[in-house]
Amino acid sequence: MARPSYDDYCRLREEFFNREQSRGLGADLVLSADEQRLNRYVMHLKQQELAKGVENPYELVSARHFFEMLERINESPLFKVIQQMPKGGVLHAHDTAIGSTELIVRATRHEHLWQSGNIPQADGEPMPVYKFSRTKPAAEGDWRLVADIRRSIGDEAYEEAIRKMFTLYTKDPLNAHRDINDVWRKFMALFICFEPMVTYRPVWEEYFYGCLEELLADNVTYLEFRGLLPPVYDLDDRTYSPEEIVQMYVDQSEKFLRAHPNFMGVKFIYAPLKFCDDRTFDGYLTLVQKLKERFPQFIAGFDLVGQEDLGRPHTDFNERLLQLPPAINFFFHAGETNWAGRRDENLIDAILLGTKRIGHGFAALKHPVVLEQIKQRQVCIELNPISNQVLKLVQDFRNHPGAFYFSDNYPVVVSSDDPSFWCASPLSHDFFVAFMGLASARADIRLLKKLALNSIEYSSMEVAEKAAAVQKWTTAWNKFVEETLKTIPAEF
Amino acid sequence: MARPSYDDYCRLREEFFNREQSRGLGADLVLSADEQRLNRYVMHLKQQELAKGVENPYELVSARHFFEMLERINESPLFKVIQQMPKGGVLHAHDTAIGSTELIVRATRHEHLWQSGNIPQADGEPMPVYKFSRTKPAAEGDWRLVADIRRSIGDEAYEEAIRKMFTLYTKDPLNAHRDINDVWRKFMALFICFEPMVTYRPVWEEYFYGCLEELLADNVTYLEFRGLLPPVYDLDDRTYSPEEIVQMYVDQSEKFLRAHPNFMGVKFIYAPLKFCDDRTFDGYLTLVQKLKERFPQFIAGFDLVGQEDLGRPHTDFNERLLQLPPAINFFFHAGETNWAGRRDENLIDAILLGTKRIGHGFAALKHPVVLEQIKQRQVCIELNPISNQVLKLVQDFRNHPGAFYFSDNYPVVVSSDDPSFWCASPLSHDFFVAFMGLASARADIRLLKKLALNSIEYSSMEVAEKAAAVQKWTTAWNKFVEETLKTIPAEF
Repeated sequence: MARPSYDDYCRLREEFFNREQSRGLGADLVLSADEQRLNRYVMHLKQQELAKGVENPYELVSARHFFEMLERINESPLFKVIQQMPKGGVLHAHDTAIGSTELIVRATRHEHLWQSGNIPQADGEPMPVYKFSRTKPAAEGDWRLVADIRRSIGDEAYEEAIRKMFTLYTKDPLNAHRDINDVWRKFMALFICFEPMVTYRPVWEEYFYGCLEELLADNVTYLEFRGLLPPVYDLDDRTYSPEEIVQMYVDQSEKFLRAHPNFMGVKFIYAPLKFCDDRTFDGYLTLVQKLKERFPQFIAGFDLVGQEDLGRPHTDFNERLLQLPPAINFFFHAGETNWAGRRDENLIDAILLGTKRIGHGFAALKHPVVLEQIKQRQVCIELNPISNQVLKLVQDFRNHPGAFYFSDNYPVVVSSDDPSFWCASPLSHDFFVAFMGLASARADIRLLKKLALNSIEYSSMEVAEKAAAVQKWTTAWNKFVEETLKTIPAEF
Repeated sequence: MARPSYDDYCRLREEFFNREQSRGLGADLVLSADEQRLNRYVMHLKQQELAKGVENPYELVSARHFFEMLERINESPLFKVIQQMPKGGVLHAHDTAIGSTELIVRATRHEHLWQSGNIPQADGEPMPVYKFSRTKPAAEGDWRLVADIRRSIGDEAYEEAIRKMFTLYTKDPLNAHRDINDVWRKFMALFICFEPMVTYRPVWEEYFYGCLEELLADNVTYLEFRGLLPPVYDLDDRTYSPEEIVQMYVDQSEKFLRAHPNFMGVKFIYAPLKFCDDRTFDGYLTLVQKLKERFPQFIAGFDLVGQEDLGRPHTDFNERLLQLPPAINFFFHAGETNWAGRRDENLIDAILLGTKRIGHGFAALKHPVVLEQIKQRQVCIELNPISNQVLKLVQDFRNHPGAFYFSDNYPVVVSSDDPSFWCASPLSHDFFVAFMGLASARADIRLLKKLALNSIEYSSMEVAEKAAAVQKWTTAWNKFVEETLKTIPAEF
């Protein structure tokens, strides 16, 4: 077959290139003149940052571990723009890992907090046990009042130790944990250690309100979070029921929304541990129905959590899940694994059970029919890139399956999973690595804007709520564009 | 919407599962009773090996660096089966990196070999310079006869040093090279260092013949290799022309085929460096046409090599490439990168220039229209998983894009690129990691068989040659099945 002329070739190539670009996430958005100007500035910053990594790949922010690059990201002007950007909502994050470590530090300032054991000086040492109590806890242990420890070593030293303990952050992340089970053990230990601290009722309410404040400060204005509803307690030895705990969430949310009418809303996905026996599981199902009846607006639906590779497969639960009334929506974690042909097949169940969104969906890439159905049914994939790196699914962000999902406009949002444990902001850091690492070097603010819009589109808000949310978000976005343009150099 | 009954659900799930399985690579093959028995044994070995990594991911052979697992792979019974398996052809490998280090060691036993500089004791030290010459080379240097060095330190010590020098193998592969440029520098230095050793005519012929012997010993019976045609020389200061060098390849191939009539053939892709100026490039194009005219059967076509991220983009060469007569087929390297939106766009040119196959295609995953065209035009992707890991594109084989290509039956072959430099066999190790890491845990010998068949299907053999090749391969395959069945436990 004869080759085309060079002119014909160039035309063909341009068509091919444009066709491919037009399929990318956000390619359907048309930018205003102001947005175009902002885009030129943002792309200048992006290209400048990426250029460092072209000559010297070791300096490529998107190829390295987040912990190695955190300081540089925090100082980068592009990150500052992303922080200011109205990013819509967080649709995938877990109850007690949303707030920053500062909220945990604040919890340790409350009266009546007891500690047994020491804060580890080195990795591998056991973590202390905490408990709020008027009197020394009856359980065995060398209980001391945190207030006394603070007095003996000083507030600053104590709080610094707390900050170091409640994070997976380390200077040498590639060698700190040998494998995925190793890092998950540490990850679970963090949750367990501070649970009695955060489930103390005054802390519980203050912590959740604090989370909402931190979201807003990061320009996130909607939250749909997952929670285990661990037993909340108080000094009078009262243990609150799940309904009462949800009521606390509702009350704090309403209080927050009254104070911040630009915030778009809060919803909750009941997401207990998948490491359970059938009887416990039945209890979950009874509970979620009760909660849905009592809080029909607040309860978005049901999910199951825990390290997928080691958890029971979905097929163990399907028969029971099918008995739930259709009013209970599913938001299953599925495919949070490197494996193919094992627990990743939970993806099939998630789809067939009619899940509204998929948590992570890292392995969906290897399931052609799942991919087809994701598009057909518009099942949103909740990407959590930093989480996937810290929890050892992927090292170079450019190898994250999100790159594939972005390239062909799969329904996706970017979220943050457990930002507390990786010293990340509620959403800005994940947006940053998604923009710099998962997305093509060519992807521009249309991708970021689309991610924000998707977080409304794929949320559990009702039609009317969504319309109101889009309006609030658009106002914020336009203001953000206007304000940012005031600060950028004239040449853009 | 009402949920299905559990029975209906189970039926739906099975259909979904089967539909997805039926799309995988090799799913269209129907196994004979004997093959099914062999398959049960192979799957038993595979599951046994993978099981080690379920409980302890650090022991998962497919998740770790090849160098860390090499000894274990070599001892594994599954690897031994794969070695014995007729694997068809190697369609992607480079001239002087196909043969094992033993062939280089053998080269150093030739008379008249001079060495200037020492064999490095530590990483980072400069490599020595070699030259065959009757008298001490005129070029500056502390030239000593290798024969004298051998006498002074002993043959064994010298050859051990040679083995250590000419490999990227290291006990600590994750820390040995900081980034992709770093490992490529070392990789290029190896080629440059032994070039004068291997381009000495007696070694050149013996080395190439040795490569064919090693391929056959690894049960690979076809070779389509890329080469730079570096100047070959002899002791009389004669430098051979590219045509003469190709003639040597042809002569050695014919000699080998006479001695081993089961071997299916050898073809050559002229693949010079893409780091060149336009005038040099014009010289490449003139040469490939001359070669094709003179060796119409032996010359398969044209390609360009070198680290893609740093090389000139394809758009620099397109106008000239389009002037080549249609008889010259292309086999372009493209998308051997983690980047999206940079040199990975060479993929578009590869497709539009009508490439017959794509070398690596690691980044094709992020190009939806490229993926579409790969299927439509049946452009074969030449996967080289170990190469991609050693050269730092991916760490966990389960994250290799080959997993995606396998899952949806993209046209692919598995090859080995430069097996010499990673102490790998000509093809068995890449087949092993493809089977254990890229493929699903469920993928069975149909996938391996399909890879072998694809290597014939997507080769440059003519229709009649392919038919003969399939016949030879089928005979060998049936014999392999029969022989292997004699050795496996009765319970399978």
